[in-house]
Amino acid sequence: MKVGFIGLGNMGGGMASNILKAGHEVTVYNRTSAKAEALAAQGAKVALRIAGACGGDVVVTMLANDAAVEEVAYGDGGVLASLARGATHVSSSTISVALSRRLAADHKAAGQRYVAAPVFGRPEMAAAGKLFVIAAGQPEAIETAGPVFEAVGQRTFVVSENSEAANLVKLSGNFLIASVIESLGEALALVGKGGVDQRLYLDMLTSTLFSAPIYKTYGTLIVEKKFEPAGFAASLGQKDIRLALAAAEALRVPMPVASLLRDRFLTLLAHGGDKLDWSAIGNLAAADAGEGKG
Amino acid sequence: MKVGFIGLGNMGGGMASNILKAGHEVTVYNRTSAKAEALAAQGAKVALRIAGACGGDVVVTMLANDAAVEEVAYGDGGVLASLARGATHVSSSTISVALSRRLAADHKAAGQRYVAAPVFGRPEMAAAGKLFVIAAGQPEAIETAGPVFEAVGQRTFVVSENSEAANLVKLSGNFLIASVIESLGEALALVGKGGVDQRLYLDMLTSTLFSAPIYKTYGTLIVEKKFEPAGFAASLGQKDIRLALAAAEALRVPMPVASLLRDRFLTLLAHGGDKLDWSAIGNLAAADAGEGKG
Amino acid sequence: MKVGFIGLGNMGGGMASNILKAGHEVTVYNRTSAKAEALAAQGAKVALRIAGACGGDVVVTMLANDAAVEEVAYGDGGVLASLARGATHVSSSTISVALSRRLAADHKAAGQRYVAAPVFGRPEMAAAGKLFVIAAGQPEAIETAGPVFEAVGQRTFVVSENSEAANLVKLSGNFLIASVIESLGEALALVGKGGVDQRLYLDMLTSTLFSAPIYKTYGTLIVEKKFEPAGFAASLGQKDIRLALAAAEALRVPMPVASLLRDRFLTLLAHGGDKLDWSAIGNLAAADAGEGKG
Amino acid sequence: MKVGFIGLGNMGGGMASNILKAGHEVTVYNRTSAKAEALAAQGAKVALRIAGACGGDVVVTMLANDAAVEEVAYGDGGVLASLARGATHVSSSTISVALSRRLAADHKAAGQRYVAAPVFGRPEMAAAGKLFVIAAGQPEAIETAGPVFEAVGQRTFVVSENSEAANLVKLSGNFLIASVIESLGEALALVGKGGVDQRLYLDMLTSTLFSAPIYKTYGTLIVEKKFEPAGFAASLGQKDIRLALAAAEALRVPMPVASLLRDRFLTLLAHGGDKLDWSAIGNLAAADAGEGKG
Repeated sequence: MKVGFIGLGNMGGGMASNILKAGHEVTVYNRTSAKAEALAAQGAKVALRIAGACGGDVVVTMLANDAAVEEVAYGDGGVLASLARGATHVSSSTISVALSRRLAADHKAAGQRYVAAPVFGRPEMAAAGKLFVIAAGQPEAIETAGPVFEAVGQRTFVVSENSEAANLVKLSGNFLIASVIESLGEALALVGKGGVDQRLYLDMLTSTLFSAPIYKTYGTLIVEKKFEPAGFAASLGQKDIRLALAAAEALRVPMPVASLLRDRFLTLLAHGGDKLDWSAIGNLAAADAGEGKG
Repeated sequence: MKVGFIGLGNMGGGMASNILKAGHEVTVYNRTSAKAEALAAQGAKVALRIAGACGGDVVVTMLANDAAVEEVAYGDGGVLASLARGATHVSSSTISVALSRRLAADHKAAGQRYVAAPVFGRPEMAAAGKLFVIAAGQPEAIETAGPVFEAVGQRTFVVSENSEAANLVKLSGNFLIASVIESLGEALALVGKGGVDQRLYLDMLTSTLFSAPIYKTYGTLIVEKKFEPAGFAASLGQKDIRLALAAAEALRVPMPVASLLRDRFLTLLAHGGDKLDWSAIGNLAAADAGEGKG
Repeated sequence: MKVGFIGLGNMGGGMASNILKAGHEVTVYNRTSAKAEALAAQGAKVALRIAGACGGDVVVTMLANDAAVEEVAYGDGGVLASLARGATHVSSSTISVALSRRLAADHKAAGQRYVAAPVFGRPEMAAAGKLFVIAAGQPEAIETAGPVFEAVGQRTFVVSENSEAANLVKLSGNFLIASVIESLGEALALVGKGGVDQRLYLDMLTSTLFSAPIYKTYGTLIVEKKFEPAGFAASLGQKDIRLALAAAEALRVPMPVASLLRDRFLTLLAHGGDKLDWSAIGNLAAADAGEGKG
Repeated sequence: MKVGFIGLGNMGGGMASNILKAGHEVTVYNRTSAKAEALAAQGAKVALRIAGACGGDVVVTMLANDAAVEEVAYGDGGVLASLARGATHVSSSTISVALSRRLAADHKAAGQRYVAAPVFGRPEMAAAGKLFVIAAGQPEAIETAGPVFEAVGQRTFVVSENSEAANLVKLSGNFLIASVIESLGEALALVGKGGVDQRLYLDMLTSTLFSAPIYKTYGTLIVEKKFEPAGFAASLGQKDIRLALAAAEALRVPMPVASLLRDRFLTLLAHGGDKLDWSAIGNLAAADAGEGKG
C-alpha cells in the first residue's frame, strides 16, 4: 500500500518506521526536514511539500496539536487540497473533538475519507510497534487503514462509526492517567509524611490491587522526582486536560477531578514546569504539604 | 498456636475459618452468637465473653469501626483487661490512625503486644485466604502473628515498626480505590454522553493501560449500575474517607481528591445510599450530567 | 456628540436611551429592527446597516458574546470597515480578553481608537443610568468616551491603559458574584437542613457582616427558588465563568473556586437550566443534600 | 444581675468589661489569673475557682475551643457541678454543634438552663460592645440572658429554640467569611497577574457591588500581605472550617467550597502559618500562580 506520513516527532518517527518495516511504500513529510533523513535511510521517500505525501491510498498525520493539524490540513497545498477523491486521511494526533468533527465534515464534502485514530503509548511503544490504536470512522475507511494500524500497534479498538468518538476516548484516557498521577501523588504525600517508606508503599500497591503498569511507571517517577527528560511534557498534558474539559463542556458533563487536574497543571506551568514530565503534578500534593521539592 | 478471633462479619468469618484450616486452635467470639455457630461446626471453640477469646498467644479483632473496637478493647472484661502479659493483639479492623496509636500505647503500658494488620480484599478473598495483609508493629510481635497472616492472606507487607503506619496505609489504599471509582465515573459519563458504548470502552481500558482488576470490577459495577447487594457498603466507604481525611489533617496534608470524594459520599448518603455498594459514587458524575439514575 | 449604538438588548436598550437623554445625537442599529423602534420614539435615528451607526465620533457595541461582537466588528461593512480614522469604538459587551486584545490591535492598525468599557449592573440599573463602567484604553480615547460613560453610569473606573484589562476585571467581578451565590447556596443548605429558618438566617447575614446588596438579592432568589424570569441567564453566567477560566489559563492562574463554578453551571445546564437566572446554581448544594428542587 | 464570666481572652476581656459597664455585678474567672486583674481594676470580683463564678443568675463562657469548654463545663468543680438549679449557662464560644447539643442535654438533666450565644465580630468590636449575638435556646433562658446580650452587642438574633442551631449559624458564618477570603484571593491573583493595580481593583469592588466591610477588611489584608499580628488566627479558622464540615457531615450536606477551604488551611498550616491571620489563605492562589510570597 502507498502510505504518506506527516509528522515525524517522538511518536510519529517510530510509527512511520514500523509502517515501512511492514512492507508498505511510505512517503514522509516533516516541517523540518532533518527528521525525515532517518526515515529515508530506512527506505522512505521524502516529500518536500505536504502534497507530496498525499498521493497514495492513505495519509497519516501525527502532529502536536490542533494548530499544527489545522495548518497541515487546511493550509495552501494541504491535505484537503491534495488528497485524491476516495483516499483516506488517518488522523492520529491528539486533537480536539471539535476539530475532528470539522475534519470529518470537510473530507466528506471533498469526496475523501477520514478516520480518527489516536493512539495510547509512550515513544518506546511507538518505536516497538506496540501502540494501542483507538479508531473511529466509516467501516470501509477503517478497513482501508487496517494494515497501517497493524503496523504501528499491538491492538486496534474500533469505538464508533462517528470519527470524533475516537478523539473523545483518547482524551478521556489521558484524563484517567492524569487522575492516577494526582491520586498517587496525594496518597504518597500522606503516607510519606506519616513516616512510611514510599518505595515500599509503592511496591505494596503495585503488587496487590494496583497492578496496572501505569501505577508502577508514574509512582516511580513521583517517588524519585525524576521529571526530566519528559516522556510526555506537562504542557501537552495541560493541553489534553483542556481538550477533555472542552469536550465535556460541549456535552455538558461536569468533571470535578478534571477541573482539579486543570488547576494542578496550571500551578505546575506557572512555576516553569512546561518541559517536565506531566507526572510532576504528582509532586504538588507533597509541596502543598510542605514537603518541599526534594 | 492458640488464637482468639473476635468479629465474625463478612470478612472476619472467612479469616477465622482459614486460621482453623491452617491447624490452629481457634476460640471465636461474636456479639451475636449465631455467626459463631458456623465456625463451631468447623471446629472452633465458642467463647461467650470477650475474655474467653483472649486466653491464647494471639487474639485477632476484625470489627466494623472505631466504636466497636473501642468497646471490645476498653470495655469491662475487654481485650486490654483480659489479655496475658506478653500476648499479642492483632487488630485487623479498618480504624483511625488515632485509635491505633492509642491502642499501641495502652497495650505497651499493660505489658502486652500490639500489631496493626488491616487487610485488602473483598469478602470472597477473605473466604479464599487470599487477602493482602498490611502489618506494622514491633518485629517480635509481627513474627508471633506470622502464622495467622499466612493463614488469612496470600502475602504480607510489613510497612513499619510503628503500628499506626499500617492503618494509614490501609486508609490511603481505600482512598486510591475510591479515586479510581470517581475517575472512572467521570470518564464513563463523558464518553457515554458522547455516544460511545460504555462496555466497549471499559473493555478497551482494561485491555490496555488500566489492566488492574479494580478497573474491571468497579467499572463493570458502574456501567451496569449494579450497586446491590453491596460488596462494601457506601457508609463504610464514607467512614474510610473520613478517617483518611482525619489522618491527613493531623499530618497537615491537603488532599483535594479525598475532599471531593467526601462530598460525593455525602451526596450519595443524603439520597439514601447507605447500603449501596460504594461504587455507586461512580454514578454521580452521570447524574450531574443529566443522565438519570436509570 | 454623535454617537452610534449597536445592540439594543436588555442592557443596551437602557444604555442607548440614557445617552439620548443626555442630549447626544444617537444612531442605533439592531439586528432585529423591532427593538430600534422604541429608541426611535425617543428621538434616535435608526440605521439599517452597521455602517450607518459608525458615522460619528463614537460607536458603542453592547452584544451578547464573542461571536456577535466578531460578526459586528469584522463582518462585511462592520465596525472596523466603517469607522472613520480617529473615531472611537467603545466595546461594552462582556467578551473574552483574547478578543478584546485582538480588537485593540486591529483598531490601532486601522487608525481608529478602541476602549473596552464593560459594565456592572442588572437591566434595571441600565435603565436608570446607574451602571458602573469599567474602562480601559488610551487616555485620549477614554476622554472622548467620557460623556457616554457619564450618561449610562453612576461611576466610571479607569483600570488601565491596556484595554483588555477592563475585560479581565469585568470577568473577575462576575466570578466573584457567582462565588457569592455558590457559598450562600452551601450555607443555606447547611442551616436549612439543620432546622434554621432560611429567611431569618438571610436577614441576619445581610444585617451584619454581609451587608452588600448582592447577598440580599441573590440570597432571596435562592431561598425563594425564584429563578424565572432570569435577570441574568445561567447560559450567560456559564459563558462568563468559561471566559474567566480562559483568561486565567492564559495567565497561568489556577482558580479552584472558578473551576467548581464551572462544574456547577454545567450541572445546571445539563438539567435544562439555560434560561433560569444564574442564581439557580445556588440551589445545587441543597439538591446534593437531598433537599429536592421543591 | 449577678453574672459570672469565664474566659478573658481577646474577645472575652472586652465582653466582660462591657457587662461591668452596664452595671451588673460581675465575677470573673480565668485559667491564668493575670488577665483577671484588668477586670478587677474595673470593679469585677475575681474568682480563684470556676465554682466561684457560678454563683449568680448567669454564667458566660467564652473559651478557645471544644476541649477548653469541655474542661470548664465537665471538670471537677466545673460549671455543671457548680451552677444552681434554674441558673443559666450562656456559651459564647465557637464550639462544635455536637458539644453544644451535649451541653443542652446535660444542663437540662441538671435542672439548669443553657443558651448557645456565639458572637460575630473581631476583638475591637468586642471592646466596643458592638458584637452581633446569635442566640438559641428556650425563650425564658434567652430572656434571662437578654441584659448580657445588650451589654456586649449591638444586636441580638434569636435563631431557634434549639440551642445548637446558634452554633451551626456561627460556623456557617465563618465559612462564608472564609469563602470571601478565598474568592477575593483568586480574583486578586488573576487581575494582579494580568497587570491591574490591586489596590485600584479593590477600591472599585468595594465602591460598587461588594460594599460589605469584610471585602474591604480582608481584601486590604491580602493586597498588603499583612498577616501579622493575627486578628483571628489561621489555626482557629482551620478549626472552624473543620467544625462546619463536621456539622455538614452529620447532616449529610456536601459543601465543596468548604472542602476547598479545608485544603487551603492545611496548606497554610503545613507551611507554618498557624499564627498568621486567617486571611493568609487568600495569598495561596497567588502563590500557586507563581507570584511568590513577597
